[in-house]
Amino acid sequence: MNLTEQLNHVFYPRTIAVIGASTAPEKAGFSCTSNLLEAGFKGRIYPVNPSISEVLGLTAYPSVGAIPDEVDLAIVVVPAQLTISTIKECVAKGVKAAIIISSGFKEVGTEIGLDLQAKLRDIANRSGIKIIGPNTMGVTNPTAKLVASFQSTLALGKAGNVAVATQSGGMCILIVHLLTNNNVGISKAIGMGNRCSLDFDDIVAYFNEDEETRVIVLYVEGLEQPKQLMKVAGEGVRRKPIVVLKGGRGEESNRATFSHTGALAGKYEFYKAAFTQSGMITASNVTELVDIAKALVYQSPAAGNRVAIVSVQAGLGIVTADRCRELGLKLAELSPATRKRLRQLISPLNAVDNPVDVAWQSNEYDTCREILKVVLDDDGVDAVTVAAIFWEPNMQLMKAVIDIARHYSKPIAVCLDSPSGIASTYLEALEEGGIPTYPTPERAATGLAGLVRYGEILKDSR
Amino acid sequence: MNLTEQLNHVFYPRTIAVIGASTAPEKAGFSCTSNLLEAGFKGRIYPVNPSISEVLGLTAYPSVGAIPDEVDLAIVVVPAQLTISTIKECVAKGVKAAIIISSGFKEVGTEIGLDLQAKLRDIANRSGIKIIGPNTMGVTNPTAKLVASFQSTLALGKAGNVAVATQSGGMCILIVHLLTNNNVGISKAIGMGNRCSLDFDDIVAYFNEDEETRVIVLYVEGLEQPKQLMKVAGEGVRRKPIVVLKGGRGEESNRATFSHTGALAGKYEFYKAAFTQSGMITASNVTELVDIAKALVYQSPAAGNRVAIVSVQAGLGIVTADRCRELGLKLAELSPATRKRLRQLISPLNAVDNPVDVAWQSNEYDTCREILKVVLDDDGVDAVTVAAIFWEPNMQLMKAVIDIARHYSKPIAVCLDSPSGIASTYLEALEEGGIPTYPTPERAATGLAGLVRYGEILKDSR
Repeated sequence: MNLTEQLNHVFYPRTIAVIGASTAPEKAGFSCTSNLLEAGFKGRIYPVNPSISEVLGLTAYPSVGAIPDEVDLAIVVVPAQLTISTIKECVAKGVKAAIIISSGFKEVGTEIGLDLQAKLRDIANRSGIKIIGPNTMGVTNPTAKLVASFQSTLALGKAGNVAVATQSGGMCILIVHLLTNNNVGISKAIGMGNRCSLDFDDIVAYFNEDEETRVIVLYVEGLEQPKQLMKVAGEGVRRKPIVVLKGGRGEESNRATFSHTGALAGKYEFYKAAFTQSGMITASNVTELVDIAKALVYQSPAAGNRVAIVSVQAGLGIVTADRCRELGLKLAELSPATRKRLRQLISPLNAVDNPVDVAWQSNEYDTCREILKVVLDDDGVDAVTVAAIFWEPNMQLMKAVIDIARHYSKPIAVCLDSPSGIASTYLEALEEGGIPTYPTPERAATGLAGLVRYGEILKDSR
Repeated sequence: MNLTEQLNHVFYPRTIAVIGASTAPEKAGFSCTSNLLEAGFKGRIYPVNPSISEVLGLTAYPSVGAIPDEVDLAIVVVPAQLTISTIKECVAKGVKAAIIISSGFKEVGTEIGLDLQAKLRDIANRSGIKIIGPNTMGVTNPTAKLVASFQSTLALGKAGNVAVATQSGGMCILIVHLLTNNNVGISKAIGMGNRCSLDFDDIVAYFNEDEETRVIVLYVEGLEQPKQLMKVAGEGVRRKPIVVLKGGRGEESNRATFSHTGALAGKYEFYKAAFTQSGMITASNVTELVDIAKALVYQSPAAGNRVAIVSVQAGLGIVTADRCRELGLKLAELSPATRKRLRQLISPLNAVDNPVDVAWQSNEYDTCREILKVVLDDDGVDAVTVAAIFWEPNMQLMKAVIDIARHYSKPIAVCLDSPSGIASTYLEALEEGGIPTYPTPERAATGLAGLVRYGEILKDSR
């Protein structure tokens, strides 16, 4: 069974056993069962617990071996010391994969914990069962209506094309929620936990082949085998961009070096260099991670780093330009022909420059469309960002953006927002038209920078 | 008439003349009138236009002189070349202040424009009429139900205690909308425009005395007389913090130097040094501006820079710590007594450290309250940030935060959010309890850093 087949049993299981299922609502064994039901999982669910006969209307079995069906996936919520025998039973039953939610392994730092985790890894290696975790929050796959986790709010994730893999379960949910709030859906999300048998390189390799995934988002704290992730990332990056946030950037532990042992020490500089070298896009915080992922899922990569800024209000243009400079983007030099044409289109009250200030034409659809066309046609422009505050007259500019964007492969990002959701009609129309929107000029520039960076990565990997 | 009396006529007018009022909905002369009506302005409104008899049911007058009433404030939307005679008429009528919305002055860079603006300044200086602008978006004051602007969406600003003054009108609306979206209300907002007679130092002096204002937010592109702003800022900073964002940070024009002419050249380093020296808090982007203002309006300044992080998910704590380090904050070293007590309260599955991981106790109100109490009582802790993803069990921690915060003056910021607004009950309860919430761990840390910075400023200005 190859990795894709194995992990398909995790993300598209037909049958799931919840080992350690419980009728007590405060227990993970209860919430893991109820979350499957509430998400509307269509496969068969088998609670396992020798002391009870039923959980939430589902017949419970005394052991995984007693289940009168094949089991694709086991969700394991028994105490750490019972996980070894549980996984052995799973292997005997022919269970394909197990998500071990239970804690009390490497993360507690005790000898017992380390030993239990080593044993789990050995069983996984010998038997071929794929183990997620231990000490994991679990996984979700919206298209399969799968929430294999004790965390019910994982179910709030919108379905889409971004795959999320994180070392921390909390960060997984945070990122899924933030993506959802920013109108970006997820294809799959997984908390990697202690990674005893499934590491970041495996999951990236899987996402590389996953048809529902177009962008991969990682939150990494530390890697024992960074070269393996770098290899897989480098192989897949032409097909799918990877955006990565490193947690624990201030840590200075430096016992081993990458070149010596293949295990990266804590220093962020090493990680960043390794990520960059293998074609991953680094983010400095979770907002950037989300903003870049959003741009990548909505738009094409840029062919270069020359940005044109179109703004209704000069101030928004200036702030966008500041952020572009900060991100290493260039303000495009508009050609003489472009300037000449813009002079005819733009009010004599405004200079013709980049940022292009369309203050007096923002309510004229045809003029806005022509201004955008002229800017997008300029060979010196690789990407465009459009910024406006919400005000009904400005929305003619936004309508023109939606129309013109269809005719160009140059990426466009928009800054637009409003209180009380009153701009939502336009925000939805823009995003249905494939144009990502952001609440601030700087965040729109961050999104564009991700598209510029991915364009560079594609060139470098030719 | 002193400055406060003059500007009270702008922000609390009893009577307003809209000079250049129009019945054509696409004209600023129409929207300036309709925005006053729609905002529910309770004073008297007098449209002025010799060609029409009525605007939106209000009797129009042929000139400001013909208005049979005292006029506190004129909103001027006539073409630039007519503004001189208009302002002269205002002076003759005894109008106290005028907002000149009209464009076509210094900002277009023509001799005519420069000349017109110089004339306006001269009239203001000689006659004592206060002129806002020209080339301004206008002003708003929610408590007076005043929207003196062509921009209707300025009315979406929530009422509160943050005063906003910006060089760009677009940035004014953007900031007002962002503050509102982040549950921060404004006391007043003003687009400064070309600042022919009212400059940043004047408006800061006014806000310093304004009882409705507790925090001042500035967006500055360039200053001719930076020393005056520095002086006023320095004088008021013990009473009210000032947060400033500089636009045009990449500009390198360096014709004059600050020490030579008193006018700051473009270089951001000079501005930043001047802002910092006079006790202003600088922000790097508009999100930071809003996040810092939010913390300052909700919480007290910190006595030092040692931060304790309490998180339900280790990952959120790690990311918070990264951002704290980036901002120059210190992770508090918990005392032996604190550690000992936390060891009794926190699951043996978690180490006792800072960040304090309360993963297994987040659903126990009493334990959470005690953990927070122990952390807040530690003399080595100056400020606390609490981070969790939304999940009903975690909300016991948030309830404990709300309760405990009342008993401490040490500032607290919370990271909490959710899709579809399902956390809103808790977010509202936290903010009603005076605790600012942020959608990401890093933004909560940014808010705390503002409180730390303000604490330092207060110490330095003793």
